[in-house]
Amino acid sequence: MCELLAMSANVPTDIVFSFTGLAERGGVTGPHVDGWGITFYEGKGSRTFKDACPSSESHVAQLIKSYPIKSEVVVSHIRQANRGCVSLENTHPFTRELWGRYWTYAHNGQLSDYQQKFAVRRYQPVGDTDSELAFCWILEKVVERFGDQAPADLLPVYRFIATLADEIRALGVFNMILSDGEHLMSYCSNNLCHITRRAPFGKAKLIDTDVVIDFDKETTPNDIVTVIATRPLTDNEDWHILKPGEWKLFARGELVLTQEG
Amino acid sequence: MCELLAMSANVPTDIVFSFTGLAERGGVTGPHVDGWGITFYEGKGSRTFKDACPSSESHVAQLIKSYPIKSEVVVSHIRQANRGCVSLENTHPFTRELWGRYWTYAHNGQLSDYQQKFAVRRYQPVGDTDSELAFCWILEKVVERFGDQAPADLLPVYRFIATLADEIRALGVFNMILSDGEHLMSYCSNNLCHITRRAPFGKAKLIDTDVVIDFDKETTPNDIVTVIATRPLTDNEDWHILKPGEWKLFARGELVLTQEG
Repeated sequence: MCELLAMSANVPTDIVFSFTGLAERGGVTGPHVDGWGITFYEGKGSRTFKDACPSSESHVAQLIKSYPIKSEVVVSHIRQANRGCVSLENTHPFTRELWGRYWTYAHNGQLSDYQQKFAVRRYQPVGDTDSELAFCWILEKVVERFGDQAPADLLPVYRFIATLADEIRALGVFNMILSDGEHLMSYCSNNLCHITRRAPFGKAKLIDTDVVIDFDKETTPNDIVTVIATRPLTDNEDWHILKPGEWKLFARGELVLTQEG
Repeated sequence: MCELLAMSANVPTDIVFSFTGLAERGGVTGPHVDGWGITFYEGKGSRTFKDACPSSESHVAQLIKSYPIKSEVVVSHIRQANRGCVSLENTHPFTRELWGRYWTYAHNGQLSDYQQKFAVRRYQPVGDTDSELAFCWILEKVVERFGDQAPADLLPVYRFIATLADEIRALGVFNMILSDGEHLMSYCSNNLCHITRRAPFGKAKLIDTDVVIDFDKETTPNDIVTVIATRPLTDNEDWHILKPGEWKLFARGELVLTQEG
């Protein structure tokens, strides 16, 4: 299995603290040694840092831990390969353009008997993971349903994507993070939780390494920051654990849609 | 204007030497202070490092200069904005997926009266540069002509792309680098040159900063490495200067097709 980490914030925020905890799971406190990746959105643009070597040893991961990139949306993944070999093309997150936005996706879990279901044409996988193929299939279905021109409102698109995720979950384990740079979706199969931090901010202590942060010193009173992870990253805060099949859509740090919405 | 740098090699090769020269032009020996980017292909996978700040000051550029990523194909660009504001989404190279390959593109030059010509539907620009729109239009036309399934032979595709580039060049200045991860195309409007290094290797001296490299110590006798740049990067070697409208296609360091081919 793999580890997921994502963030949605109402002001450009760095993820150095959370990534520091996650990166330890890539070879130190966790067995996820088959590469890692992190995508930062800055406005409409995005950049992804990836490495096929363990995050705990990676030069690039070291940069991410020491160089605070301020971002409104972050998607990150560290990998323990199950389907697909260890290589850069199989390293999450995966990105494709649709409607003039970069869509970024990462998956935790494993699927079976999926080849026949995931017929794709316009969006084709570059690597050979079940994860990337499922992402391509989601985009294929979205274009089939909504066409080439972006709808004015993306919420119906995310409701539709949730039904696709339900179908995929029937094939195995499918914890998913998906973003178009403005919205951030978390879809839970069995391992996904989140926390929304806002004023009054307190201290947080990482589980995976001996680091404590005082968010009160790092933030302004108006900041709202939601962090999503496969497992809680801190042991002194209340993380909300998602149920199987539950999903949430965030924008600017706030919840904007759930499966009941 | 901007600066382009690209490499095609028959063995994974690092581009630290050439990038060190190029990065100086981003704020030290050149005025290209509006961001930079570099894409490395490693197998079918690719990763892009980008920054909207000058390459001579960038933390990320510092990493690229100190951490030798071995790659068969590299595409790089440093930007002086003419069309489109200074932002991550306007920073080259741009990447899109087609036929299960990542296509990476960078442009030097400026186009006029292009909006009407570049009607796009499937591939839409995220930023607001003429460059990205021209790239989307090229891919749109390629799909229109060759369909959704990859042709067995990509050479006819590149011949077709050259005719599209001729059309684009009629709108202004269009020096282009394009790669699918296996092939590397250079299309010249007014500023593009290349050099192919092979045994016996010698020493090379950068123009933009006081660095000399002895390739004989860095290579094996079978290595073949082609470097493409807008202007020669070294002053003790013979760079081949492309003529207006001339283009070359390289693979594994060797020339595989030109406009006469």
